[in-house]
Amino acid sequence: MKLYDCKTAPSARRVRIFLAEKGLAPPRIEVNLRGGEQLEPAFRAINPYCTVPVLELDDGTRLCSTAAIWRYLEATYPEPALMGRSAREQARIADLQWHIEHEGFTAVAECFRNAVPGMKDRALTGPLAYAQIPALAERGRRRAVAFLAALESMAVAAGPYLCGAHFSVADIDALVVIDFASRLHLELPAEAAATRRWYAEVSARPSVSA
Amino acid sequence: MKLYDCKTAPSARRVRIFLAEKGLAPPRIEVNLRGGEQLEPAFRAINPYCTVPVLELDDGTRLCSTAAIWRYLEATYPEPALMGRSAREQARIADLQWHIEHEGFTAVAECFRNAVPGMKDRALTGPLAYAQIPALAERGRRRAVAFLAALESMAVAAGPYLCGAHFSVADIDALVVIDFASRLHLELPAEAAATRRWYAEVSARPSVSA
Repeated sequence: MKLYDCKTAPSARRVRIFLAEKGLAPPRIEVNLRGGEQLEPAFRAINPYCTVPVLELDDGTRLCSTAAIWRYLEATYPEPALMGRSAREQARIADLQWHIEHEGFTAVAECFRNAVPGMKDRALTGPLAYAQIPALAERGRRRAVAFLAALESMAVAAGPYLCGAHFSVADIDALVVIDFASRLHLELPAEAAATRRWYAEVSARPSVSA
Repeated sequence: MKLYDCKTAPSARRVRIFLAEKGLAPPRIEVNLRGGEQLEPAFRAINPYCTVPVLELDDGTRLCSTAAIWRYLEATYPEPALMGRSAREQARIADLQWHIEHEGFTAVAECFRNAVPGMKDRALTGPLAYAQIPALAERGRRRAVAFLAALESMAVAAGPYLCGAHFSVADIDALVVIDFASRLHLELPAEAAATRRWYAEVSARPSVSA
Protein backbone atom coordinates (compact mmCIF):
# COMPACT_ATOMS: atom_id res chain seq x y z
CA MET A 1 0.00 0.00 0.00
CA LYS A 2 0.97 3.66 -0.31
CA LEU A 3 -0.23 6.91 1.20
CA TYR A 4 -1.02 10.17 -0.59
CA ASP A 5 -0.14 12.63 2.11
CA CYS A 6 0.53 16.27 2.93
CA LYS A 7 2.84 17.15 5.77
CA THR A 8 0.83 20.24 6.81
CA ALA A 9 -2.72 18.80 6.49
CA PRO A 10 -4.40 17.93 9.81
CA SER A 11 -6.45 15.08 8.30
CA ALA A 12 -3.37 13.45 6.84
CA ARG A 13 -1.70 13.74 10.24
CA ARG A 14 -4.54 11.71 11.79
CA VAL A 15 -3.57 8.84 9.49
CA ARG A 16 0.19 9.26 9.95
CA ILE A 17 -0.13 9.00 13.75
CA PHE A 18 -2.39 5.95 13.38
CA LEU A 19 0.11 4.25 11.07
CA ALA A 20 3.01 5.00 13.40
CA GLU A 21 1.11 3.56 16.39
CA LYS A 22 0.65 0.36 14.37
CA GLY A 23 4.34 0.30 13.46
CA LEU A 24 3.55 0.76 9.76
CA ALA A 25 5.44 3.01 7.35
CA PRO A 26 4.05 2.67 3.81
CA PRO A 27 5.63 4.77 1.06
CA ARG A 28 4.30 8.34 1.08
CA ILE A 29 3.59 10.59 -1.89
CA GLU A 30 3.53 14.25 -0.86
CA VAL A 31 0.71 16.25 -2.47
CA ASN A 32 1.27 19.99 -2.66
CA LEU A 33 -2.03 21.31 -1.32
CA ARG A 34 -0.78 24.89 -1.05
CA GLY A 35 0.11 24.78 -4.74
CA GLY A 36 -3.33 23.40 -5.64
CA GLU A 37 -2.03 20.02 -6.84
CA GLN A 38 -5.17 18.32 -5.44
CA LEU A 39 -7.29 20.17 -8.03
CA GLU A 40 -5.19 19.17 -11.03
CA PRO A 41 -6.36 16.43 -13.40
CA ALA A 42 -3.63 13.98 -12.35
CA PHE A 43 -4.72 14.00 -8.71
CA ARG A 44 -8.43 14.16 -9.52
CA ALA A 45 -7.98 10.87 -11.32
CA ILE A 46 -6.64 9.43 -8.06
CA ASN A 47 -9.23 11.03 -5.77
CA PRO A 48 -12.20 12.91 -7.28
CA TYR A 49 -12.88 14.43 -3.85
CA CYS A 50 -9.55 16.28 -4.21
CA THR A 51 -8.39 15.60 -0.65
CA VAL A 52 -5.65 13.83 1.24
CA PRO A 53 -5.13 11.41 2.89
CA VAL A 54 -5.67 8.66 0.31
CA LEU A 55 -4.52 5.12 1.06
CA GLU A 56 -3.98 3.04 -2.04
CA LEU A 57 -4.10 -0.72 -1.46
CA ASP A 58 -2.06 -3.21 -3.44
CA ASP A 59 -5.14 -4.23 -5.48
CA GLY A 60 -5.57 -0.60 -6.55
CA THR A 61 -8.48 0.20 -4.20
CA ARG A 62 -8.22 3.79 -3.02
CA LEU A 63 -9.61 4.83 0.34
CA CYS A 64 -10.34 8.56 0.35
CA SER A 65 -11.32 9.35 3.94
CA THR A 66 -9.62 9.03 7.31
CA ALA A 67 -12.60 6.97 8.54
CA ALA A 68 -12.12 4.36 5.83
CA ILE A 69 -8.34 4.26 6.15
CA TRP A 70 -8.52 3.78 9.91
CA ARG A 71 -11.15 1.05 9.50
CA TYR A 72 -9.06 -0.84 6.95
CA LEU A 73 -5.88 -0.63 8.98
CA GLU A 74 -7.59 -1.63 12.24
CA ALA A 75 -9.13 -4.71 10.61
CA THR A 76 -5.90 -5.69 8.85
CA TYR A 77 -3.40 -4.89 11.61
CA PRO A 78 -5.39 -5.34 14.83
CA GLU A 79 -2.50 -4.73 17.25
CA PRO A 80 -2.37 -2.45 19.09
CA ALA A 81 -6.12 -1.82 18.96
CA LEU A 82 -6.84 1.89 18.43
CA MET A 83 -10.61 1.60 17.92
CA GLY A 84 -11.57 -0.61 20.85
CA ARG A 85 -11.90 -4.33 21.50
CA SER A 86 -15.29 -5.19 23.04
CA ALA A 87 -18.46 -3.93 21.37
CA ARG A 88 -18.97 -1.45 24.20
CA GLU A 89 -15.41 -0.14 24.00
CA GLN A 90 -15.59 0.18 20.21
CA ALA A 91 -18.82 2.11 20.58
CA ARG A 92 -17.56 4.45 23.31
CA ILE A 93 -14.47 5.30 21.24
CA ALA A 94 -16.59 5.80 18.11
CA ASP A 95 -18.91 8.10 20.06
CA LEU A 96 -16.15 10.29 21.43
CA GLN A 97 -14.26 10.36 18.13
CA TRP A 98 -17.41 11.36 16.24
CA HIS A 99 -18.07 14.24 18.61
CA ILE A 100 -14.44 15.40 18.53
CA GLU A 101 -14.51 15.34 14.72
CA HIS A 102 -17.85 17.11 14.43
CA GLU A 103 -17.54 19.63 17.19
CA GLY A 104 -13.79 20.17 17.26
CA PHE A 105 -12.26 19.43 13.91
CA THR A 106 -15.20 20.82 11.92
CA ALA A 107 -15.28 23.99 14.03
CA VAL A 108 -11.59 24.76 13.60
CA ALA A 109 -11.76 24.00 9.88
CA GLU A 110 -14.83 26.24 9.57
CA CYS A 111 -12.94 29.11 11.14
CA PHE A 112 -9.67 28.47 9.31
CA ARG A 113 -11.12 28.04 5.83
CA ASN A 114 -13.45 31.01 6.11
CA ALA A 115 -10.89 33.36 7.66
CA VAL A 116 -7.48 32.74 6.11
CA PRO A 117 -6.72 34.77 2.94
CA GLY A 118 -5.01 31.80 1.29
CA MET A 119 -8.31 29.88 1.43
CA LYS A 120 -10.27 32.37 -0.70
CA ASP A 121 -12.94 30.37 -2.59
CA ARG A 122 -11.71 27.23 -0.82
CA ALA A 123 -14.10 27.41 2.14
CA LEU A 124 -14.77 23.71 1.65
CA THR A 125 -12.52 20.94 0.42
CA GLY A 126 -13.39 19.31 -2.90
CA PRO A 127 -13.51 20.17 -6.57
CA LEU A 128 -16.11 22.97 -6.34
CA ALA A 129 -15.26 26.54 -5.34
CA TYR A 130 -17.11 27.88 -2.30
CA ALA A 131 -16.67 31.51 -1.25
CA GLN A 132 -15.64 32.34 2.29
CA ILE A 133 -18.46 33.42 4.62
CA PRO A 134 -17.19 35.84 7.29
CA ALA A 135 -20.06 34.96 9.66
CA LEU A 136 -18.98 31.33 9.43
CA ALA A 137 -15.41 32.18 10.40
CA GLU A 138 -16.84 33.85 13.50
CA ARG A 139 -19.12 30.92 14.26
CA GLY A 140 -16.28 28.45 13.82
CA ARG A 141 -14.14 30.40 16.26
CA ARG A 142 -16.92 30.45 18.83
CA ARG A 143 -17.50 26.71 18.41
CA ALA A 144 -13.78 25.94 18.64
CA VAL A 145 -13.45 27.89 21.89
CA ALA A 146 -16.43 25.99 23.32
CA PHE A 147 -14.91 22.70 22.22
CA LEU A 148 -11.50 23.38 23.76
CA ALA A 149 -13.20 24.17 27.05
CA ALA A 150 -15.45 21.09 26.87
CA LEU A 151 -12.44 18.78 26.56
CA GLU A 152 -11.75 19.30 30.26
CA SER A 153 -14.76 17.28 31.38
CA MET A 154 -13.64 14.42 29.10
CA ALA A 155 -10.07 14.59 30.39
CA VAL A 156 -11.17 14.72 34.04
CA ALA A 157 -13.37 11.65 33.57
CA ALA A 158 -10.65 9.75 31.73
CA GLY A 159 -7.62 7.84 32.82
CA PRO A 160 -5.09 8.14 31.48
CA TYR A 161 -6.51 8.39 27.93
CA LEU A 162 -9.77 9.97 26.79
CA CYS A 163 -11.52 6.61 26.54
CA GLY A 164 -9.84 5.00 29.52
CA ALA A 165 -6.87 2.68 29.76
CA HIS A 166 -5.85 2.60 26.08
CA PHE A 167 -4.66 5.21 23.62
CA SER A 168 -7.26 5.42 20.81
CA VAL A 169 -8.43 7.39 17.79
CA ALA A 170 -10.25 9.71 20.22
CA ASP A 171 -6.85 10.78 21.57
CA ILE A 172 -5.48 11.16 18.04
CA ASP A 173 -8.34 13.40 16.97
CA ALA A 174 -8.34 15.57 20.09
CA LEU A 175 -4.59 16.06 19.85
CA VAL A 176 -4.73 16.98 16.15
CA VAL A 177 -7.61 19.42 16.76
CA ILE A 178 -5.71 21.19 19.55
CA ASP A 179 -2.65 21.64 17.35
CA PHE A 180 -4.82 22.74 14.39
CA ALA A 181 -6.57 25.32 16.62
CA SER A 182 -3.22 26.73 17.72
CA ARG A 183 -2.66 27.90 14.14
CA LEU A 184 -5.57 30.28 14.80
CA HIS A 185 -4.08 31.23 18.18
CA LEU A 186 -6.81 29.32 19.98
CA GLU A 187 -5.41 27.58 23.04
CA LEU A 188 -6.65 25.32 25.80
CA PRO A 189 -8.05 27.37 28.70
CA ALA A 190 -5.44 28.10 31.36
CA GLU A 191 -7.56 26.35 34.00
CA ALA A 192 -7.94 23.13 31.94
CA ALA A 193 -5.47 21.25 34.13
CA ALA A 194 -6.55 17.71 33.28
CA THR A 195 -6.58 18.42 29.54
CA ARG A 196 -3.14 19.98 29.75
CA ARG A 197 -1.77 16.97 31.63
CA TRP A 198 -3.29 14.57 29.09
CA TYR A 199 -2.07 16.72 26.18
CA ALA A 200 1.52 16.79 27.49
CA GLU A 201 1.47 13.02 27.85
CA VAL A 202 0.08 12.16 24.43
CA SER A 203 2.24 14.80 22.73
CA ALA A 204 5.33 12.98 24.00
CA ARG A 205 4.48 9.80 22.05
CA PRO A 206 6.89 9.15 19.16
CA SER A 207 3.94 8.64 16.75
CA VAL A 208 2.86 12.24 17.17
CA SER A 209 5.78 13.59 15.17
CA ALA A 210 5.08 11.17 12.31
CA MET B 1 -31.38 -1.56 25.70
CA LYS B 2 -33.70 1.33 24.77
CA LEU B 3 -33.70 4.05 22.14
CA TYR B 4 -34.34 7.76 22.61
CA ASP B 5 -35.89 8.58 19.29
CA CYS B 6 -37.84 11.17 17.31
CA LYS B 7 -40.09 10.06 14.50
CA THR B 8 -39.32 13.11 12.30
CA ALA B 9 -35.53 13.32 12.86
CA PRO B 10 -33.40 12.04 9.95
CA SER B 11 -30.55 10.91 12.20
CA ALA B 12 -32.88 8.85 14.36
CA ARG B 13 -34.28 7.28 11.21
CA ARG B 14 -30.79 6.08 10.26
CA VAL B 15 -30.75 4.06 13.48
CA ARG B 16 -34.35 2.82 13.17
CA ILE B 17 -33.68 1.41 9.70
CA PHE B 18 -30.47 -0.22 10.94
CA LEU B 19 -32.30 -1.83 13.89
CA ALA B 20 -35.10 -3.10 11.64
CA GLU B 21 -32.58 -4.65 9.22
CA LYS B 22 -31.08 -6.52 12.20
CA GLY B 23 -34.53 -7.64 13.33
CA LEU B 24 -34.24 -5.65 16.57
CA ALA B 25 -37.00 -3.60 18.17
CA PRO B 26 -35.86 -2.12 21.50
CA PRO B 27 -38.32 0.05 23.44
CA ARG B 28 -38.43 3.61 22.08
CA ILE B 29 -38.84 6.84 24.00
CA GLU B 30 -40.09 9.63 21.75
CA VAL B 31 -38.37 12.97 22.37
CA ASN B 32 -40.32 16.04 21.26
CA LEU B 33 -37.66 17.94 19.31
CA ARG B 34 -40.16 20.45 17.91
CA GLY B 35 -41.19 21.33 21.44
CA GLY B 36 -37.56 21.74 22.53
CA GLU B 37 -37.57 18.78 24.93
CA GLN B 38 -33.95 18.01 23.98
CA LEU B 39 -32.86 21.30 25.61
CA GLU B 40 -34.64 20.71 28.91
CA PRO B 41 -32.68 19.63 32.00
CA ALA B 42 -34.20 16.13 32.09
CA PHE B 43 -32.95 15.29 28.60
CA ARG B 44 -29.64 17.12 29.03
CA ALA B 45 -28.94 14.74 31.89
CA ILE B 46 -29.40 11.86 29.45
CA ASN B 47 -27.45 13.42 26.57
CA PRO B 48 -25.54 16.68 27.12
CA TYR B 49 -25.22 17.03 23.33
CA CYS B 50 -29.04 17.50 23.24
CA THR B 51 -29.59 15.23 20.24
CA VAL B 52 -31.31 12.00 19.29
CA PRO B 53 -30.76 9.16 18.64
CA VAL B 54 -29.40 7.92 21.96
CA LEU B 55 -29.07 4.20 22.59
CA GLU B 56 -29.00 3.28 26.26
CA LEU B 57 -27.44 -0.10 27.03
CA ASP B 58 -28.51 -2.30 29.90
CA ASP B 59 -25.44 -1.31 31.94
CA GLY B 60 -26.49 2.35 31.64
CA THR B 61 -23.94 3.30 28.96
CA ARG B 62 -25.44 5.87 26.61
CA LEU B 63 -24.32 6.12 23.00
CA CYS B 64 -25.06 9.57 21.63
CA SER B 65 -24.19 9.37 17.93
CA THR B 66 -25.40 7.28 15.02
CA ALA B 67 -21.78 6.21 14.38
CA ALA B 68 -21.42 4.73 17.87
CA ILE B 69 -24.86 3.10 17.88
CA TRP B 70 -24.22 1.45 14.52
CA ARG B 71 -20.81 0.25 15.66
CA TYR B 72 -22.20 -1.26 18.87
CA LEU B 73 -25.08 -3.02 17.12
CA GLU B 74 -22.88 -4.35 14.31
CA ALA B 75 -20.41 -5.84 16.80
CA THR B 76 -23.14 -7.29 19.03
CA TYR B 77 -25.56 -8.52 16.33
CA PRO B 78 -23.33 -9.28 13.34
CA GLU B 79 -26.04 -10.70 11.07
CA PRO B 80 -26.89 -9.44 8.57
CA ALA B 81 -23.68 -7.43 8.21
CA LEU B 82 -24.46 -3.79 7.36
CA MET B 83 -20.90 -2.44 7.66
CA GLY B 84 -18.97 -5.00 5.64
CA ARG B 85 -17.21 -8.29 6.32
CA SER B 86 -13.65 -8.27 4.93
CA ALA B 87 -11.31 -5.42 5.81
CA ARG B 88 -11.58 -4.09 2.27
CA GLU B 89 -15.38 -4.24 2.24
CA GLN B 90 -15.61 -2.58 5.66
CA ALA B 91 -13.33 0.18 4.41
CA ARG B 92 -15.20 0.74 1.14
CA ILE B 93 -18.50 1.04 2.97
CA ALA B 94 -16.96 3.37 5.58
CA ASP B 95 -15.55 5.51 2.77
CA LEU B 96 -18.83 5.88 0.93
CA GLN B 97 -20.84 6.37 4.12
CA TRP B 98 -18.46 9.09 5.31
CA HIS B 99 -18.76 10.98 2.05
CA ILE B 100 -22.55 10.63 1.98
CA GLU B 101 -22.74 11.94 5.54
CA HIS B 102 -20.34 14.82 4.95
CA GLU B 103 -21.40 15.90 1.50
CA GLY B 104 -25.06 14.90 1.51
CA PHE B 105 -26.42 14.86 5.02
CA THR B 106 -24.39 17.86 6.18
CA ALA B 107 -25.36 19.87 3.09
CA VAL B 108 -29.09 19.29 3.49
CA ALA B 109 -28.91 20.00 7.23
CA GLU B 110 -26.94 23.19 6.51
CA CYS B 111 -29.67 24.38 4.16
CA PHE B 112 -32.57 23.22 6.34
CA ARG B 113 -31.33 24.64 9.63
CA ASN B 114 -30.27 27.98 8.15
CA ALA B 115 -33.42 28.47 6.06
CA VAL B 116 -36.44 27.18 7.99
CA PRO B 117 -38.14 29.76 10.28
CA GLY B 118 -38.71 27.12 12.98
CA MET B 119 -34.93 26.68 13.30
CA LYS B 120 -34.21 30.28 14.27
CA ASP B 121 -31.12 30.27 16.55
CA ARG B 122 -30.93 26.49 16.07
CA ALA B 123 -28.59 26.52 13.07
CA LEU B 124 -26.60 23.78 14.78
CA THR B 125 -27.72 21.00 17.08
CA GLY B 126 -26.53 21.10 20.66
CA PRO B 127 -27.03 23.15 23.80
CA LEU B 128 -25.68 26.45 22.42
CA ALA B 129 -27.74 28.84 20.29
CA TYR B 130 -26.31 29.63 16.84
CA ALA B 131 -28.02 32.19 14.62
CA GLN B 132 -29.04 31.27 11.09
CA ILE B 133 -26.66 32.45 8.35
CA PRO B 134 -28.56 33.12 5.09
CA ALA B 135 -25.42 32.60 2.97
CA LEU B 136 -25.06 29.18 4.55
CA ALA B 137 -28.60 28.20 3.60
CA GLU B 138 -27.70 29.09 0.02
CA ARG B 139 -24.44 27.16 0.17
CA GLY B 140 -26.15 24.14 1.65
CA ARG B 141 -28.70 24.15 -1.15
CA ARG B 142 -25.96 24.34 -3.76
CA ARG B 143 -24.04 21.50 -2.11
CA ALA B 144 -27.16 19.36 -1.78
CA VAL B 145 -27.98 19.76 -5.48
CA ALA B 146 -24.41 18.76 -6.38
CA PHE B 147 -24.62 15.75 -4.07
CA LEU B 148 -27.93 14.50 -5.50
CA ALA B 149 -26.43 14.66 -8.99
CA ALA B 150 -23.20 12.95 -7.89
CA LEU B 151 -25.12 9.94 -6.57
CA GLU B 152 -25.69 8.82 -10.16
CA SER B 153 -22.08 7.84 -10.72
CA MET B 154 -22.17 5.78 -7.51
CA ALA B 155 -25.43 4.11 -8.51
CA VAL B 156 -24.21 3.37 -12.04
CA ALA B 157 -21.05 1.75 -10.69
CA ALA B 158 -22.96 -0.27 -8.11
CA GLY B 159 -24.93 -3.43 -8.22
CA PRO B 160 -27.48 -3.67 -6.89
CA TYR B 161 -26.53 -1.68 -3.78
CA LEU B 162 -24.22 1.31 -3.51
CA CYS B 163 -21.34 -0.81 -2.22
CA GLY B 164 -22.08 -3.88 -4.32
CA ALA B 165 -23.91 -7.07 -3.51
CA HIS B 166 -25.08 -6.23 0.03
CA PHE B 167 -27.35 -3.58 1.49
CA SER B 168 -25.24 -1.44 3.85
CA VAL B 169 -25.12 1.75 5.90
CA ALA B 170 -24.14 3.56 2.69
CA ASP B 171 -27.59 2.73 1.30
CA ILE B 172 -29.26 3.77 4.55
CA ASP B 173 -27.54 7.14 4.56
CA ALA B 174 -28.14 7.92 0.89
CA LEU B 175 -31.80 7.00 1.20
CA VAL B 176 -32.28 9.13 4.32
CA VAL B 177 -30.51 12.10 2.69
CA ILE B 178 -32.73 11.91 -0.40
CA ASP B 179 -35.88 11.92 1.72
CA PHE B 180 -34.52 14.70 3.94
CA ALA B 181 -33.72 16.80 0.84
CA SER B 182 -37.28 16.36 -0.45
CA ARG B 183 -38.48 18.41 2.54
CA LEU B 184 -36.65 21.31 0.87
CA HIS B 185 -38.17 20.36 -2.52
CA LEU B 186 -34.78 19.15 -3.71
CA GLU B 187 -35.22 16.04 -5.85
CA LEU B 188 -33.00 13.62 -7.74
CA PRO B 189 -32.26 14.89 -11.27
CA ALA B 190 -34.77 13.59 -13.83
CA GLU B 191 -31.95 11.97 -15.81
CA ALA B 192 -30.54 10.08 -12.81
CA ALA B 193 -31.95 6.77 -14.01
CA ALA B 194 -29.66 4.44 -12.05
CA THR B 195 -30.19 6.36 -8.81
CA ARG B 196 -33.95 6.32 -9.30
CA ARG B 197 -33.90 2.58 -9.90
CA TRP B 198 -31.77 2.00 -6.80
CA TYR B 199 -33.93 4.40 -4.75
CA ALA B 200 -37.15 2.62 -5.74
CA GLU B 201 -35.66 -0.71 -4.77
CA VAL B 202 -34.31 0.29 -1.36
CA SER B 203 -37.43 2.32 -0.55
CA ALA B 204 -39.49 -0.85 -0.87
CA ARG B 205 -37.65 -2.57 1.98
CA PRO B 206 -39.83 -3.03 5.08
CA SER B 207 -37.09 -1.51 7.30
CA VAL B 208 -37.43 1.85 5.57
CA SER B 209 -40.78 2.61 7.17
CA ALA B 210 -39.45 1.76 10.64
